[in-house]
Amino acid sequence: MTTTDLDATTIAGLERTASELDAADPIAALRDEFVGAETSLVYFDGNSLGRPPRATVDRLARFVTEEWGGRLIRGWDESWMQLPFAIGDEIGRVAIGAGAGQTVIGDSTTVLLYKLLRAAFDAQQAADPARVEIVVDTDNFPTDRYLVDGIARERGGRVRWIEADRAAGVTADQLRAAVGPQTAVVLLSHVAYRSGHLADAPALTGIAHDAGALILWDLCHSAGSVPVEADAWGFDLAVGCTYKYLNGGPGAPAFAYVAQRHQAALAQPIQGWMGAADVFAMGPEYRPAEGMRRFLSGTPPIVGMLAMQDTLAMIERVGIEAIRAKSVALTDFTVTVSDTLLAPLGVAVASPRDAAERGGHVTLSHPAMRAVTAALWEQDVIPDYRDPEGLRIGLSPLSTSFAETLAGLRAVAAAVRAAS
Amino acid sequence: MTTTDLDATTIAGLERTASELDAADPIAALRDEFVGAETSLVYFDGNSLGRPPRATVDRLARFVTEEWGGRLIRGWDESWMQLPFAIGDEIGRVAIGAGAGQTVIGDSTTVLLYKLLRAAFDAQQAADPARVEIVVDTDNFPTDRYLVDGIARERGGRVRWIEADRAAGVTADQLRAAVGPQTAVVLLSHVAYRSGHLADAPALTGIAHDAGALILWDLCHSAGSVPVEADAWGFDLAVGCTYKYLNGGPGAPAFAYVAQRHQAALAQPIQGWMGAADVFAMGPEYRPAEGMRRFLSGTPPIVGMLAMQDTLAMIERVGIEAIRAKSVALTDFTVTVSDTLLAPLGVAVASPRDAAERGGHVTLSHPAMRAVTAALWEQDVIPDYRDPEGLRIGLSPLSTSFAETLAGLRAVAAAVRAAS
Repeated sequence: MTTTDLDATTIAGLERTASELDAADPIAALRDEFVGAETSLVYFDGNSLGRPPRATVDRLARFVTEEWGGRLIRGWDESWMQLPFAIGDEIGRVAIGAGAGQTVIGDSTTVLLYKLLRAAFDAQQAADPARVEIVVDTDNFPTDRYLVDGIARERGGRVRWIEADRAAGVTADQLRAAVGPQTAVVLLSHVAYRSGHLADAPALTGIAHDAGALILWDLCHSAGSVPVEADAWGFDLAVGCTYKYLNGGPGAPAFAYVAQRHQAALAQPIQGWMGAADVFAMGPEYRPAEGMRRFLSGTPPIVGMLAMQDTLAMIERVGIEAIRAKSVALTDFTVTVSDTLLAPLGVAVASPRDAAERGGHVTLSHPAMRAVTAALWEQDVIPDYRDPEGLRIGLSPLSTSFAETLAGLRAVAAAVRAAS
Repeated sequence: MTTTDLDATTIAGLERTASELDAADPIAALRDEFVGAETSLVYFDGNSLGRPPRATVDRLARFVTEEWGGRLIRGWDESWMQLPFAIGDEIGRVAIGAGAGQTVIGDSTTVLLYKLLRAAFDAQQAADPARVEIVVDTDNFPTDRYLVDGIARERGGRVRWIEADRAAGVTADQLRAAVGPQTAVVLLSHVAYRSGHLADAPALTGIAHDAGALILWDLCHSAGSVPVEADAWGFDLAVGCTYKYLNGGPGAPAFAYVAQRHQAALAQPIQGWMGAADVFAMGPEYRPAEGMRRFLSGTPPIVGMLAMQDTLAMIERVGIEAIRAKSVALTDFTVTVSDTLLAPLGVAVASPRDAAERGGHVTLSHPAMRAVTAALWEQDVIPDYRDPEGLRIGLSPLSTSFAETLAGLRAVAAAVRAAS
């Protein structure tokens, strides 16, 4: 039996599996609701920029013609002023387990993280000047690390770095050893952007709280693919992306969650008119609004927050649990295919093998992955690359099929072969 | 002769004038390029939210289908990473007199003002700890005042308030008296949001510089309607809106200008991945990028910055001088009509009467103006209201005709009569 015969049999088996999984997938039909689903393009980067729902094309056209063009400035009074809160509440309800009045669409992820970290650090400092440390891990996303570094410097604080193992994430023991009476705030990612490691958020939140620290969760890589229970898990603060699994479009504004119990005590530093108690009084002094509006600063980015509503409606229709079930099936299948087709080529799975510890993407490691990514893009097979040596296979559950996944991984195998 | 006869004659004269002005207007045809131009709606609030160009409907649909949906994540490499700089340079070239490499589209106006004010204040403090004051006027826009107040508090600085006369703006003498060796930075608006007063930006910039201060210009109410020469007038820093005269849509992101000579020395506090020297190295430490990218923080809001390109193309076609000429004619005509039809009803012109000291809107003052605004909105005549007693007649030069202006002001007269 030659390698080719072996491959042919193996491929036929995987194709049968993919086909069965697609046939059994209760949310398979949603894929057709996305732009480009009819093409042979393989999209493995919905964890970085989600595909647009077809409904978004009409939504934007209608918005420009009827709302912006038709209602003009009246649109602010009629609906736009409330939109950041209405969409925020919808994210809370369908994606992150947050009761109403705790989630809002604001600025970019980076700016919202800055505002909430500053607010949390300053409040902790005011209550207890000994709380000077911000805890963050070395494998966290660059923005998170850079922000913590800058804020510690400008506020006279210190950074306590946790050296996280990439595949294992921040462990309970590591966090327990890092926090104490000196800790102001902990910043962790729920799903790691490189390995896809899924943190045990309830346990880690409890550890931070036991030390008297506040915890800020970065939900960028989980919102919309992994269930989050912000209220039930006792989150203090969270920020998340809307252009990944929520398909809000390139650079769509992020959301911020602040638990009700903290809102009145937290003040963020970018004091703008939209965060003031009475926006149109335009009075001499800044008094922060009650509730989540105090975390806003400038005019809400309405055009940028329209698209995400189409995906939020889909999540509401099928439920986040069904989405997570498909996500687990997709990443399990990817690990299986990788073990079968890619391991013999020297490719390693750099993500957790246990689905309970894995978010919505699988990272495959090989020295040639940077070149492989470039070659794949030319063929309309689109993963992304992250140092070191990581090919990220993002599997957006609403828009990715098992057949597409297999086709893409076969292309990865061919590209690795060609590059080796 | 009865009042009615007098009115009829007067109205006929004004109608003739409006008709002649429209006929002689070299950029009159541009009005038809806006959504809603075919209706009888009168729009007097393009200084707050500009009308959408018709081209924007297609632009957004094409973007979702072809760029976002078709290129997907590749769009970042292919064009979106450069878009904030490309549009920034276009704003520089066609609207604010800035050479390439000094203007970028970033966050909201408020967030950009915060970043540049912080950067300027911190740099001045580092060079000379005696420079502890931020100078701002009491009639500046709320966001500007609130930010200054917050930054002074968090950085151990002080605010020096200039009590500006609403109609006369901040005078050279006032600024000269306010600045000195204690001044770090001055923040002024080029066109006042209430009265429409147009500041003598070159002279005031010189006064700030003579005292060793940096000056940050808020161009929100001038960009796209009043010529600005950021380079020639020696500006240090500027921030401006894109959803007013640049018709970028509700909450479109703002632009920031930083003069080349200052860029290397200024560091802004919101250290995110997009401001780092090598974005995708994702290294352990934040090193700010060269040039304007250091003033970015999070992922650029691409969807939000698309629409403004249609208006920038129009400005490029006809030139900002032609736009200013029409703007002056529109505001002059508004003053004339107000003197004729509204003064007898007790309405006063609260804006400068000299066009050289006036931006693109005219504010009309009367105790009933809040109620008048509400009544007008019901009739599709749409100015806006600003305390105290001010009806703002915004006259976006690209999308407003003289006939529309007269029709709207006649409706104002009727509404004031009804409310009195």
